[in-house]
Amino acid sequence: MSLVESMHSFWAEFVSGAARPFSHHSSRFVVGVSGGADSLALLHVLRHLLSPDQLVVAHLNHGWRDTAVLDAQFVAQTAANWGLPYVVETLPPVETPREEAARQARYRFLARVADEWGATAVVVAHNADDQAETVLMHLLRGSGLTGLSGMSPTSPLPEAPYLTLLRPFLKVDRATIDAYCQAHALSPRQDSTNADTTFLRNRLRHELLPLLTTYNPQIRSHLTQLADVVTADDALLRQLTDAQWPSLLHQQGPDWLAVRRAAWQALPLSLRRRTLRQAALTLRPFLPDLTFAAIEQARRLAEEASGGVAVPLAGGLWLRVDYDRLLITSEPEQIPGDWPQLPADTPLTLPVPGSVALADGWRIEADRLAVGDLTAVQQNPDPWTAYVVVAASSLTVAGRRSGERFQPLGMNGRSASLKEVMVNRKISAPLRARWPVVRTGEQVVWLVGHLVDERAKVTEGATAVVRLRCSKVDVVS
Amino acid sequence: MSLVESMHSFWAEFVSGAARPFSHHSSRFVVGVSGGADSLALLHVLRHLLSPDQLVVAHLNHGWRDTAVLDAQFVAQTAANWGLPYVVETLPPVETPREEAARQARYRFLARVADEWGATAVVVAHNADDQAETVLMHLLRGSGLTGLSGMSPTSPLPEAPYLTLLRPFLKVDRATIDAYCQAHALSPRQDSTNADTTFLRNRLRHELLPLLTTYNPQIRSHLTQLADVVTADDALLRQLTDAQWPSLLHQQGPDWLAVRRAAWQALPLSLRRRTLRQAALTLRPFLPDLTFAAIEQARRLAEEASGGVAVPLAGGLWLRVDYDRLLITSEPEQIPGDWPQLPADTPLTLPVPGSVALADGWRIEADRLAVGDLTAVQQNPDPWTAYVVVAASSLTVAGRRSGERFQPLGMNGRSASLKEVMVNRKISAPLRARWPVVRTGEQVVWLVGHLVDERAKVTEGATAVVRLRCSKVDVVS
Repeated sequence: MSLVESMHSFWAEFVSGAARPFSHHSSRFVVGVSGGADSLALLHVLRHLLSPDQLVVAHLNHGWRDTAVLDAQFVAQTAANWGLPYVVETLPPVETPREEAARQARYRFLARVADEWGATAVVVAHNADDQAETVLMHLLRGSGLTGLSGMSPTSPLPEAPYLTLLRPFLKVDRATIDAYCQAHALSPRQDSTNADTTFLRNRLRHELLPLLTTYNPQIRSHLTQLADVVTADDALLRQLTDAQWPSLLHQQGPDWLAVRRAAWQALPLSLRRRTLRQAALTLRPFLPDLTFAAIEQARRLAEEASGGVAVPLAGGLWLRVDYDRLLITSEPEQIPGDWPQLPADTPLTLPVPGSVALADGWRIEADRLAVGDLTAVQQNPDPWTAYVVVAASSLTVAGRRSGERFQPLGMNGRSASLKEVMVNRKISAPLRARWPVVRTGEQVVWLVGHLVDERAKVTEGATAVVRLRCSKVDVVS
Repeated sequence: MSLVESMHSFWAEFVSGAARPFSHHSSRFVVGVSGGADSLALLHVLRHLLSPDQLVVAHLNHGWRDTAVLDAQFVAQTAANWGLPYVVETLPPVETPREEAARQARYRFLARVADEWGATAVVVAHNADDQAETVLMHLLRGSGLTGLSGMSPTSPLPEAPYLTLLRPFLKVDRATIDAYCQAHALSPRQDSTNADTTFLRNRLRHELLPLLTTYNPQIRSHLTQLADVVTADDALLRQLTDAQWPSLLHQQGPDWLAVRRAAWQALPLSLRRRTLRQAALTLRPFLPDLTFAAIEQARRLAEEASGGVAVPLAGGLWLRVDYDRLLITSEPEQIPGDWPQLPADTPLTLPVPGSVALADGWRIEADRLAVGDLTAVQQNPDPWTAYVVVAASSLTVAGRRSGERFQPLGMNGRSASLKEVMVNRKISAPLRARWPVVRTGEQVVWLVGHLVDERAKVTEGATAVVRLRCSKVDVVS
């Protein structure tokens, strides 16, 4: 395909035919022009596709080289000759030019020009050779599929995601662009920083890619094809991840979330990894340090552990198994979410049968049961339900008292400190003072959600069995 | 993880815990031992995991080097010292050692030993560094996800897929293996071909990977992690492809198949590519030359074309759009599958109303209609249904006569050669002689599946309208 055909097919697919199409006649496009062959050819082709008032030429002089001012003059002169508006800006010189900072500054500049001129999209001249270099760069840095996808033909503009970034030359190689410039008598500027191998990209271009070419002369096109294949594969896997996410997400707070563990465990390995990554990125949208090793460590814990230990993810986030949930929190010991708490420090009365309201929609209910099958009661797996023997017609619900002890079931009547049990059970410190304890008179009956007192246990032949249930009533807010 | 821990976790996951588990006490394993550090350590660890009668040591001397005989002696001596049975075989010397041929010979040898000794699995010592090299090699050759997956911890044995190939060291790096050998006073042989950079793998190991390490010291682990991620992603995408395949496959013959085009077009890009690949591999299970470019060309044709042209895939296969199907055939002009054919050269009588049987379950039915809406009849989109005006109470169905002409509808009464129309309509040569033509007396009424004769067309006010339908009756065979 020629350069012009490539542009037409790109424009048909991604601009006119985009999900939110740009109207040919009302949209304005900012074109990033360095003055090199790629961007000069880009501007030349766009000038024949669009009308002059749809184009704004933008050039940022990083001030790194003395010759840069000549590049800026060349771009301004070309735009003027072609009857196009242009914005040329020069940054103050920097001590040590940094590739990444320069890239960010460039995108911020392009966004500013787009805003000023009412443009909704920015067009840049990245070509297939740049794409091959990008894939290789991501590969060297260590990357999953998303990195190997390279650059997208269309994406949100970095630093200003409300604008669209278009790359119509992404499948056009450098040789085709050079041929176009020759055929149209364009005389682009040579970027002298191109040869500076202190920049990673230039080192790839001038050192690594030529070596790789001795292994396989087709290496550049293999890398761009890989990006093409991987982009589609990754898009489908993202779509599957997104489709799973709502049913996986159990609860979410400002700095934590809980994932349904059984549903997560049933996913294929690829989606187990991807949803863990999604969980972290939901809380911290920018997490450059979320490594493969961290995801793997979290995945193994989430698959195998029975609870307790937390492992670090990235960005200060931790993952922990919490019963049937995976908790992602910003503190390793954080118990996020909804827990039963007393509304005040004063004791409450729980009639039997009857119920009592705690804070935030939680409540405790009591009812009397005729117990037929004692096994079911003794093997009750639900920590939020307790079966006890009490004769009184009402119980009290209050917080732990200083120094209070009780006799946890299964310890042969030995007593334990209520506070120590709370600590061992990892009820986090701020929750302990108002954690509900059910008593009959002065005697503990149930540490809610955790332990029944030995003295209230249901034995063979018990008649006055009371079922206590602690639950949250969902309130439509 | 130490080498021994890695082996235990591998064995628990892939051997004892495999879908078809190997029993610890009855299975026998062939261990490929070159005498180098990797395979010597492998044998040493396995000797402590399994009983001696579960192990068979296998060594193939390619006869490339004079010192190779010393390697063979070393392996035999070690096996004997450790009380293990061994098979050492020497190949006749070759002029030019070839990596790929040697690899195949090695797997065939291991399979032979496994067969002779009643083993169901072969264990080899590929390590994490080998894995990184494999990923890099596939990347250089040009590869999609499947290549980037590298080697699998467990897979069918190449050249003998009924046997299982196990690679317990795939996540263990070379340094850990060397340390193990030192700690256990093992003195492995040095493979002198290791340094021979005429072999691609050695060139990667001694030239390319050291250079890549100057870009990123972690490159080896990045490549093995990439393989790990990609293996899971690719497995899920294969699973999705396999799940789609039965509903996509319309018909299949010995050297052709047809895919439902609309269902295929509705798939995401990733699966459109993967199912085309699957279609080709269904007909030709080994297709090393199935390139990205061929798949892309076929995909674009399948997405956009309205029929006719065929594009080559690989292995002599072609893809063509055929109405609502995609045909993959071994001839560009092949019309595979079921087409209506006369059972013999003698004419058949079609009563109106009534039906007539053709060959292979095909038939033509005729019935009389009261036509209310003429537009529906004139715009009939189904080539296998024709609306005609005939008064006779029976029609004849026979093949084309030599030199016969008719007046195709829409040519203003001009006549055309029946043979030429058949050629233009791409009815393939072997089908033409017995392709059914419906006539009233000597006059053509319908070239089945293609054209109605002008003289039989339905016009305003027509009364004796006949509907002709040609269809295949599915026969339960």
